[in-house]
Amino acid sequence: MHNEKINVAILGASGYTGAELFRLLSHHPYVNLVYLTGEKHANQYIEELFPHFRLINKSFKLIKIEEIDWLKIDLVFSALPHGLIQKIINEIPEKIKIIDLSSDFRLNDSYIYEQWYHHKHEAKEFLSNAVYGLTEINHKYIPSARLIANPGCYPTASLLPLIPLLYSKKIDPKNIIIDAKSGVSGAGREAKQTSLFTEISEGIHPYGISKHRHIPEIEQELSKAFGEKIQISFTPHLIPMNRGIYTTIYVQNAPSITSSDIDKELNNFYKKNEFVVVLPYNSVPSTRHVRGSNYCYISVCEDRVTNRTIILTVIDNLIKGASGQAIQNMNLTYNFKENLGLEAYPLFP
Amino acid sequence: MHNEKINVAILGASGYTGAELFRLLSHHPYVNLVYLTGEKHANQYIEELFPHFRLINKSFKLIKIEEIDWLKIDLVFSALPHGLIQKIINEIPEKIKIIDLSSDFRLNDSYIYEQWYHHKHEAKEFLSNAVYGLTEINHKYIPSARLIANPGCYPTASLLPLIPLLYSKKIDPKNIIIDAKSGVSGAGREAKQTSLFTEISEGIHPYGISKHRHIPEIEQELSKAFGEKIQISFTPHLIPMNRGIYTTIYVQNAPSITSSDIDKELNNFYKKNEFVVVLPYNSVPSTRHVRGSNYCYISVCEDRVTNRTIILTVIDNLIKGASGQAIQNMNLTYNFKENLGLEAYPLFP
Amino acid sequence: MHNEKINVAILGASGYTGAELFRLLSHHPYVNLVYLTGEKHANQYIEELFPHFRLINKSFKLIKIEEIDWLKIDLVFSALPHGLIQKIINEIPEKIKIIDLSSDFRLNDSYIYEQWYHHKHEAKEFLSNAVYGLTEINHKYIPSARLIANPGCYPTASLLPLIPLLYSKKIDPKNIIIDAKSGVSGAGREAKQTSLFTEISEGIHPYGISKHRHIPEIEQELSKAFGEKIQISFTPHLIPMNRGIYTTIYVQNAPSITSSDIDKELNNFYKKNEFVVVLPYNSVPSTRHVRGSNYCYISVCEDRVTNRTIILTVIDNLIKGASGQAIQNMNLTYNFKENLGLEAYPLFP
Amino acid sequence: MHNEKINVAILGASGYTGAELFRLLSHHPYVNLVYLTGEKHANQYIEELFPHFRLINKSFKLIKIEEIDWLKIDLVFSALPHGLIQKIINEIPEKIKIIDLSSDFRLNDSYIYEQWYHHKHEAKEFLSNAVYGLTEINHKYIPSARLIANPGCYPTASLLPLIPLLYSKKIDPKNIIIDAKSGVSGAGREAKQTSLFTEISEGIHPYGISKHRHIPEIEQELSKAFGEKIQISFTPHLIPMNRGIYTTIYVQNAPSITSSDIDKELNNFYKKNEFVVVLPYNSVPSTRHVRGSNYCYISVCEDRVTNRTIILTVIDNLIKGASGQAIQNMNLTYNFKENLGLEAYPLFP
Repeated sequence: MHNEKINVAILGASGYTGAELFRLLSHHPYVNLVYLTGEKHANQYIEELFPHFRLINKSFKLIKIEEIDWLKIDLVFSALPHGLIQKIINEIPEKIKIIDLSSDFRLNDSYIYEQWYHHKHEAKEFLSNAVYGLTEINHKYIPSARLIANPGCYPTASLLPLIPLLYSKKIDPKNIIIDAKSGVSGAGREAKQTSLFTEISEGIHPYGISKHRHIPEIEQELSKAFGEKIQISFTPHLIPMNRGIYTTIYVQNAPSITSSDIDKELNNFYKKNEFVVVLPYNSVPSTRHVRGSNYCYISVCEDRVTNRTIILTVIDNLIKGASGQAIQNMNLTYNFKENLGLEAYPLFP
Repeated sequence: MHNEKINVAILGASGYTGAELFRLLSHHPYVNLVYLTGEKHANQYIEELFPHFRLINKSFKLIKIEEIDWLKIDLVFSALPHGLIQKIINEIPEKIKIIDLSSDFRLNDSYIYEQWYHHKHEAKEFLSNAVYGLTEINHKYIPSARLIANPGCYPTASLLPLIPLLYSKKIDPKNIIIDAKSGVSGAGREAKQTSLFTEISEGIHPYGISKHRHIPEIEQELSKAFGEKIQISFTPHLIPMNRGIYTTIYVQNAPSITSSDIDKELNNFYKKNEFVVVLPYNSVPSTRHVRGSNYCYISVCEDRVTNRTIILTVIDNLIKGASGQAIQNMNLTYNFKENLGLEAYPLFP
Repeated sequence: MHNEKINVAILGASGYTGAELFRLLSHHPYVNLVYLTGEKHANQYIEELFPHFRLINKSFKLIKIEEIDWLKIDLVFSALPHGLIQKIINEIPEKIKIIDLSSDFRLNDSYIYEQWYHHKHEAKEFLSNAVYGLTEINHKYIPSARLIANPGCYPTASLLPLIPLLYSKKIDPKNIIIDAKSGVSGAGREAKQTSLFTEISEGIHPYGISKHRHIPEIEQELSKAFGEKIQISFTPHLIPMNRGIYTTIYVQNAPSITSSDIDKELNNFYKKNEFVVVLPYNSVPSTRHVRGSNYCYISVCEDRVTNRTIILTVIDNLIKGASGQAIQNMNLTYNFKENLGLEAYPLFP
Repeated sequence: MHNEKINVAILGASGYTGAELFRLLSHHPYVNLVYLTGEKHANQYIEELFPHFRLINKSFKLIKIEEIDWLKIDLVFSALPHGLIQKIINEIPEKIKIIDLSSDFRLNDSYIYEQWYHHKHEAKEFLSNAVYGLTEINHKYIPSARLIANPGCYPTASLLPLIPLLYSKKIDPKNIIIDAKSGVSGAGREAKQTSLFTEISEGIHPYGISKHRHIPEIEQELSKAFGEKIQISFTPHLIPMNRGIYTTIYVQNAPSITSSDIDKELNNFYKKNEFVVVLPYNSVPSTRHVRGSNYCYISVCEDRVTNRTIILTVIDNLIKGASGQAIQNMNLTYNFKENLGLEAYPLFP
């Protein structure tokens, strides 16, 4: 195992994902945090933006990206908003590893990218070499990647159960329905009327029906696993809670496959993974049981309707769905113990 | 229109549904509230149980059911817990109308009842004559019914869009998936660890997968509408909010039917109804937009997956999903204006 | 009693207070709503801004203030943000009654106004004739006023108990401490990072310590009641809830006065008021018990510390703390029944 | 520094405080968890009670207290409900250190205990030797104590700022008003109607006015610091959030002392403490900024009213207000690094 410190920069430390990277990396024994950037907040201390960091390091000041001395850096985490890292990636020296938490490099096909994002991709040449950073699935490819495209929160929670099942042909590739629910931190820290307490609390509503940008990412990875093009129904809902993703996934079993077979397949697939836990058959996870941790709980339930199965997954969207998985990928890359910086157990209540 | 006062008793006024009946009926111009019952709380004033009623009537005392003088009553609302009204219904004089908010008389078939409720039904003879009180659907049968079995909250939100679509053969009767979400008031006011603030807030989880007792009620009514036995996938989730039901319903269009045809069918079916509002095609309702009111908002969205449609409905579970619909049924029965006592617009935020 | 319809305009209908005026006035039997204004939202329908109003009136369009034909109006409610109505009040014909919900005309002294608001008052000449619209206290002066300065939410909850006690010399005018708590709707509907769900839920914090602009308004009215200048300690806190104001008020009893005497004084003072209810001595109100209503609950509790009393009050900040009290003032002005449009009982849970 | 593992039992591991001890101790490098007890839940695995512990140790079973082999234990944490540890403390061998999180041994005077708890104390002989475990104040006495009475959550947040100020005579000992606010986890995990989501969310109310059992504990410690009997006004409020204590403390400055002097005194007193942080003068902490951590943030604000000061403190009630401080006391006792097991930074949002 590697045990020298690496030098790390976090681009975009003023959002919730950047702040989680900062929080988790502050406890990592082999990380030396060198730079935090925040274009609008340059020259502010991190605790001015996030008073809960008053304790960590009173002198950490945000800088602008242009102020970075790249020679001092081994690895960059980019938590910039969508569309920005593609504009500057060519300026980052090749020897620096990049773990990007935005959607800029998740889609392999620039044509599909442009269909969903409605603008030209500005660094197409990186798309084919980026490795999709779904750790438990792509752990073989991650260590050697220069650019890791860290998955979205909904894709992480949706793909972890579905990829092994499609790969092993345990479920019908048609009629996969993912009814997803997310906490509000997924909407970011930007001031928006639709994210006000008064507009969110005490209610529920879906959004982005048939249009959510995580759809092509999910379909791309499912199609790879199955070997044919797959289309899904995906409906995300906003829940009055801070953290958490719930996916309730409705599938048709493959011929002669039972729900119990599906449960066994997932148990077997994940038996050696610390962070993906398959619960007892027919049990019910809750987002509050993974809050503040890097765990993903999965359970398989038999539906009353013959040959149908309901699969449930929960993650903390900011950790396994973003910053935690990014650090897990860094740990793999540098041959650190996989759970370094991610040891915290869930915080409940 | 009728305009003499009727004399009303509320059985089980110590729960949330009973309290809502009390609140709404207190403003009804043609209702004379005569009795409130509460076995454990007999001799307590209603405002001791519900301090928000201090204003209404300081001298309203709960009594035991046995203290009722039935001669003084025209109509009984029963908000008793499941299983109790079937034990005493034979003691209620025949001339008294009964609107029952429990599940005791919703299922027509005592065999199915016993499968789902695991005990013998104690008043089977009433099952065949009870009218299922889904107002907009059964308005023709409600006025002449002696016993109205008021629908459950999930069934109300699920059936209002699906019955017209199955009746008119606009959707495939197979593969109907109802992913439902409910506020916590649906769990009642009883002290239970699973309903504590600390166990509910800041998280989401499903419950009763494949076992929820609203399933047979939904399937019974859908089967009637379609003319053949229908089976559904139904998954309810508990949401950290007080009031509201959301149903996200995934259906397969019938051959040659488009999502837009489905939208038109529902628009047409409900065009004269005050309380069921079909929103513009592809729009998204929120539970907070019907909170505190008797309205049901429905919208129809086209899915990306060809020939699939996503139907969304919202209601306030305590009003359109319980006490409000019960009063709407009373209004129909006595030929009162349908919205009397139910005029309140939603309360937001 | 008056029973002809009056013609009403609401200025600033795109905020929460304006929307509450619209909701409540829609049910008022003697109000004819003629105009709603919203500068940024002119030409939008009210239900585009507030989907919960889809039912009321699908064709109500917001206009700009300059589009108003003042000849068609008897009364104006202004729910404009602070500082705007003072710029246009001179353009409103004298015969039109004005009920202003902002802080523009609450302070009698333009010098104090300028100290707290840091700009010149632009319509000083109105300050001396505006009547402070705390209904139960100023009901004699309200009917004849041309301009009613509707009180703030914190002042309403603070002044209702304190004015009678200072007037009757039951409490010491020094050392009055008001620890106040508010729901988030008080912060308005504007997009602000500090009002995001993620920044508000699951926590509590005070704000505006020693600087909140409701302080001079409270001190002005207390000083009037007592006959001498009074200074208070006032600390408002933001609570993760939509509606409600709680004030926990710590006072020193006047010599030879007991907490029970204080309770009796308030009982006596408010015995004929529908909307201000003094609870039994030593009982504890909750904001949830007045939610959605125009009621104010007050209770008086004896402190363990000799000669000290703790006074508790609750209101719904958007109703008794804003739009409800404004309508109550309109009802007084036109000799309508005081509770018209305000009959709704609290909505719980 | 000590660095051998100690053997630890947690009595009462089925409540929230016990579960926090388990969570935090699971990461402590020098703790060997030997027993968890739970009378009603004996033979259940910890993850059956707390599904968020599925990951930690699948085979940890709760036992009854009588099953403990005391010879295997060095230290006991008791998180039993009030009144129980006093019944069995005599059975615990003298060589075992006890850190009690209940109120059984916090009051030195059995007469005062009986006044507030309304029953005879069953182990009076321990009262005089128990050390009150407010770490930063009593750090000199804690290491040698056999029995540590861990402070309550409200007392911790109230005493940390007030003790140094009374000891140094910076504030008037009369007229100290503590307006406190707590999250719901403080009410425990027992099924109670008053703790239901529906009864707590979307509102605020005080409780136990002049009667809360933390009052004598606060007064005892303040009186010790000042050298004379002190009486306080203390009003706790329940806030719709899971974790957190807020205290808003109103004090009169001592003659010739300014608010700024008070700020300096606290800065000086706590300058070497990791877990008590005095924020910049006149700044405002929030409970969400210490959530999930052992930190206490304090700030001092000048009141407008001359010679008055408002002091604000926040803690996480389950950590610094209970289990975290208990572990901090264990660390002191065994000469471990003070922050072992308590390194986690706050979790926000």
